[in-house]
Amino acid sequence: MGALVFQSDFGLDDGAVSAMHGVAYGIDSSLNIFDLTHGIEPYNILEASFRLMQTINYWPEGTTFVSVVDPGVGSDRRSIVVKTNSNKYVVTPDNGTLTLVNNMIGIKEARIINETINRRPDSSESYTFHGRDIYAYTGARLASGVINFEEVGDEIDVNSLVLLDIKKPVLKDNSIEGFVETLDIRYGSLWTNIDYDLFSKLNIGLGQELEVLITSQNRVIYRNRVVFARSFADVNEGEALVYVNSLKCIAIAINKGSFANAYNIGTGPDWQISLSKIEK
Amino acid sequence: MGALVFQSDFGLDDGAVSAMHGVAYGIDSSLNIFDLTHGIEPYNILEASFRLMQTINYWPEGTTFVSVVDPGVGSDRRSIVVKTNSNKYVVTPDNGTLTLVNNMIGIKEARIINETINRRPDSSESYTFHGRDIYAYTGARLASGVINFEEVGDEIDVNSLVLLDIKKPVLKDNSIEGFVETLDIRYGSLWTNIDYDLFSKLNIGLGQELEVLITSQNRVIYRNRVVFARSFADVNEGEALVYVNSLKCIAIAINKGSFANAYNIGTGPDWQISLSKIEK
Amino acid sequence: MGALVFQSDFGLDDGAVSAMHGVAYGIDSSLNIFDLTHGIEPYNILEASFRLMQTINYWPEGTTFVSVVDPGVGSDRRSIVVKTNSNKYVVTPDNGTLTLVNNMIGIKEARIINETINRRPDSSESYTFHGRDIYAYTGARLASGVINFEEVGDEIDVNSLVLLDIKKPVLKDNSIEGFVETLDIRYGSLWTNIDYDLFSKLNIGLGQELEVLITSQNRVIYRNRVVFARSFADVNEGEALVYVNSLKCIAIAINKGSFANAYNIGTGPDWQISLSKIEK
Repeated sequence: MGALVFQSDFGLDDGAVSAMHGVAYGIDSSLNIFDLTHGIEPYNILEASFRLMQTINYWPEGTTFVSVVDPGVGSDRRSIVVKTNSNKYVVTPDNGTLTLVNNMIGIKEARIINETINRRPDSSESYTFHGRDIYAYTGARLASGVINFEEVGDEIDVNSLVLLDIKKPVLKDNSIEGFVETLDIRYGSLWTNIDYDLFSKLNIGLGQELEVLITSQNRVIYRNRVVFARSFADVNEGEALVYVNSLKCIAIAINKGSFANAYNIGTGPDWQISLSKIEK
Repeated sequence: MGALVFQSDFGLDDGAVSAMHGVAYGIDSSLNIFDLTHGIEPYNILEASFRLMQTINYWPEGTTFVSVVDPGVGSDRRSIVVKTNSNKYVVTPDNGTLTLVNNMIGIKEARIINETINRRPDSSESYTFHGRDIYAYTGARLASGVINFEEVGDEIDVNSLVLLDIKKPVLKDNSIEGFVETLDIRYGSLWTNIDYDLFSKLNIGLGQELEVLITSQNRVIYRNRVVFARSFADVNEGEALVYVNSLKCIAIAINKGSFANAYNIGTGPDWQISLSKIEK
Repeated sequence: MGALVFQSDFGLDDGAVSAMHGVAYGIDSSLNIFDLTHGIEPYNILEASFRLMQTINYWPEGTTFVSVVDPGVGSDRRSIVVKTNSNKYVVTPDNGTLTLVNNMIGIKEARIINETINRRPDSSESYTFHGRDIYAYTGARLASGVINFEEVGDEIDVNSLVLLDIKKPVLKDNSIEGFVETLDIRYGSLWTNIDYDLFSKLNIGLGQELEVLITSQNRVIYRNRVVFARSFADVNEGEALVYVNSLKCIAIAINKGSFANAYNIGTGPDWQISLSKIEK
């Protein structure tokens, strides 16, 4: 039996997460229930998409994820379950949460949840908590084998899924332009959308410096030479570094400090980063 | 075997919760251990009562809850276990934590914990952490079947339980008066103690406006017409709505905003709400 | 099979903890996975050491702890697993995290992790997330019996472990000098490094007053007579008390208040406390 992994923007300070756990446990008490995070910023679908992508590869085949960042609850947005190319399932509103998983892993098959079957009994009058009444319920039934994937509901075209419009990083001559996708919150590091494979085309060796330019709304926020290092321990305390993060993308940090706090840097497509090779 | 579900005001940043988990796991390693929340405001017994009520119905029969919001630890407040009318168990100090479960579900039987038997070995010198030494220990033994309910200790009169004095909502002509029981913290929504059954007596249909008056210490905090909607998606972004929350009570929110922050609204009996039908 | 208990300074708001859980679950889906805390202050090795000591005694023999507070990731600090005198395992960077467990329980045997065997497949290019690729992976394999302790790697001298230099409390005539080791965060209580056995040599009875002096950087922060009480319930609301905490060390608090906030008190060796018997 696969694990059932929850994420949401509910926080941990009230009973919402536990209500979902209870519904799942009531389906099958032998389920292995985990939490990815419930600290996603309210309504932040891009962050939900990122957290899935950050973790899904480290869970075994057959794992079922339930993601509930659902600003459109009560609208006609679809409730779906997809099977990824890596044979994991994601139960989610069809609102863009699957964007990064779709772009980087691929989705093999998608089904719309048939709510006449896959809805918690006696919950038809509840219009605001589909996380509990539909997503946790369906995810638990799928993870425990009470239903199989076909029994979720009718298949829908994978190409019909709602995707966020995310700019890809661009290589131009001797520089790459991308943006700050998320922060490694606790350490204040910037995680960019520039993957290492693309970065390696700049031919910058470990220990070499490169130029880092960060702009937001056409203002220059940061422009400096920074060393490309293997890890924090390779630079002094308080020194900045460019490194490859645990998702094999380029990140920027200050050892024992917070790069994000030091320069008041936020996340999203507006926080643009340019990395340039320094000409000799 | 039933699940064992913990809640407390300990927070998650130190080792207190893990010490309770360890004691429970040491009783029986096959126990299914969950956390409701540990983010209850320190000493806030009403909030503890509310979180139990918010979740207990979504867990199956036989589930054991351990609730440790215990400002009177070391006093002569009683340590008890109750069985609800829905056949769930709650292990808790007898300090009002059971108020809402008592009022809305009912308690079938109550027993005082016999601490000569039901106390972690070698813990008799610990006077400040009954959550670990008595409640987690007793809850785990009960949930795992090491003891049955009778072996908790002597039965006590259900009518002797300490209950908080909570005003019930009142229907007067064309309006209902209640108060803000809690916040849906992440979204800033006000959750009132006015249940939908009572509200429905005002005969306000979906899409109709009603008058919402919020007062605190005899000052008017908010007075406006607000639409009664099925869910957030039925109103514009930034627009207020009255809706039925996931506990089938009346709530007030701003779509994509925070009603509580917008008007600096708190919780408790002093934050009174009046909902009135608008005469044509 | 033993439990697998994680702690780190990662926080719960991103996917780092879940990536570790997924790696562990992928090793053996029947593992019992728990979290001690992930709220340790970034890079605070002393706090990591304290949280281990605060909880380890409440988990049964055979439990495996994985602790990842790792400012030196990528340096040549060693990755190790130790077996305590109480037959529990700790997987951790060798950076002082084991100090308090070493001093108060003792370490029976230590082994350096052989990373050619005990490293997540395909992770050799990851230099910044040993928590996921080495510690969670090794901890899960050890806890599930895939490897035994000997298979972790070569034995190393227990006396070679990195330990923090922690001053012990000192008894002088009629007073004891120690420091504020940590806060009971939620309640603002000061937890000192003065154990009850040493304190008892002052012969101060319950209900008696003693003098409490707190200094920091040679400034007097607090000097007052405080009653030695069994628990909060023995003093009035708003009154200070000295008591024996759940780790059998001396703590100082204000009933229903926050001692730490009231006097702006921090933690660490610089926050010195002197407890003195009052001469009649």
